[in-house]
Amino acid sequence: MTYAIFNNKLIKTEEIYISPQDRGFRYGDGVFDTLLVRNGKIYQLAWHLRRLEDGLKAIKINFMIYELESLCQQLLDANKVTDGLLRIQITRGVGGRGYLPEEGRNVTLLIEAIDKPKSPSTPATLWQSSYQKISRQALPVQFKLCQGLNSTLARMEATEYKCFDSLLLNEKNEICETSSANIFWFKNGELYTPALDCGVLEGSIRTAVIRLSPFKVHKVAANIDELKKAESVFITNVAWKILAVSELKPIDIKWQSEDLSSQILALLENDIKKAIS
Amino acid sequence: MTYAIFNNKLIKTEEIYISPQDRGFRYGDGVFDTLLVRNGKIYQLAWHLRRLEDGLKAIKINFMIYELESLCQQLLDANKVTDGLLRIQITRGVGGRGYLPEEGRNVTLLIEAIDKPKSPSTPATLWQSSYQKISRQALPVQFKLCQGLNSTLARMEATEYKCFDSLLLNEKNEICETSSANIFWFKNGELYTPALDCGVLEGSIRTAVIRLSPFKVHKVAANIDELKKAESVFITNVAWKILAVSELKPIDIKWQSEDLSSQILALLENDIKKAIS
Repeated sequence: MTYAIFNNKLIKTEEIYISPQDRGFRYGDGVFDTLLVRNGKIYQLAWHLRRLEDGLKAIKINFMIYELESLCQQLLDANKVTDGLLRIQITRGVGGRGYLPEEGRNVTLLIEAIDKPKSPSTPATLWQSSYQKISRQALPVQFKLCQGLNSTLARMEATEYKCFDSLLLNEKNEICETSSANIFWFKNGELYTPALDCGVLEGSIRTAVIRLSPFKVHKVAANIDELKKAESVFITNVAWKILAVSELKPIDIKWQSEDLSSQILALLENDIKKAIS
Repeated sequence: MTYAIFNNKLIKTEEIYISPQDRGFRYGDGVFDTLLVRNGKIYQLAWHLRRLEDGLKAIKINFMIYELESLCQQLLDANKVTDGLLRIQITRGVGGRGYLPEEGRNVTLLIEAIDKPKSPSTPATLWQSSYQKISRQALPVQFKLCQGLNSTLARMEATEYKCFDSLLLNEKNEICETSSANIFWFKNGELYTPALDCGVLEGSIRTAVIRLSPFKVHKVAANIDELKKAESVFITNVAWKILAVSELKPIDIKWQSEDLSSQILALLENDIKKAIS
């Protein structure tokens, strides 16, 4: 993509440089969000803006989000994006003695357009990670914080074991999410997903699935044994939306790959079409 | 300071720019270290290089540290630094689809010289943080990871309550450390500090204090009630070395400010003088 938005200006991507004193670079001190673009329009924009605003508030970054909508549109127009993703990142900006931020800083705002990612062509295999999810007592993990090392290490671990992604449990050994997706499972024809209290990131597709599901949805605290009783499992994120899971290693649980998630995907696609028309 | 080292080259600080795709900026995906410089020499350099190497290994970044010593010396010479700090940061570099790093990346290396920070002139007041320390099950927190949001939020909270720093407990409610320092306390004339198992960052001054202490040192798992029994408390970090603590709020424990830590500081200063002579 040729252009990005950097600190409220449309600018060529190769001309964007971050200060080495940016607290994003030094400490991952910021939030980001990834938005689905279809037909040149943003799906669930208001929801994303609300999540960004809440996330900024949770980590005490002062930033008025009201200009973001027009900046995103400006970027989509400049890059002539029809299908793809937008990635918005806001950091606490430049400066500060150690962890304590300086007064009167300006935040750093970066909005990038990203090409439509390829969806995986086969069901996902998951690895039960040796890393525990960071707890809600340590960080407001329901938001997309620029603190990606836990997810990165879990994702790398999955690759080492030739799996697509890792499943992380929380500090109480409850099912939480994968390194980059929320998880759902069917049991007796009803839908289950970890409750936000389990330390879950509140994903945009998770939210849409809960809203659209024709099946009763239970938000639960559940341990890994629950997945043994599940009829099928799927994971959700904004890049590939909904993906069936075939297997959890190394404890070796397998699920049917033709599951009810295809029904939910159809409803989601329909909702996206309606929203962007 | 006029110069820094950026990707193995000496370069003017204002000419350093970080790519917005750097995983440091996007995710805080890296490690850093802060080293004490006195008389143009680095205190405990070998120890720091070992910690950096172990930290890089723990987060699976491939980087050969053997050039760091000469790069640090080159920077000290160029900036004519006698007293101050060096800050070394290594990130996983540019690129990757989401959390999964791309193959064949180059890491980003930044070494900066920092002016000698002012030491606080009064004993520290601590605030018992509402944030819990990130657990060792989630991240290898004994190393200085570029995941500073937990410390940043805790430090900002201390400032809100007009305290110097925050004291964080771990997931078992054991005393861990402050947002930017290790903690020690005296009880019956012996020295206590949280064990590494408590999720403590292994600080360089903590290590020196344990090595130099003429008092018996106990590395313990202890809850906050232990501090009520303490005769005096101090905190350590590389910027101001050793600082007495006068008070813990809001539970309102007070300690004498003229404590045995001045003896330890004298031993530390002596050790630094020997090491850099």
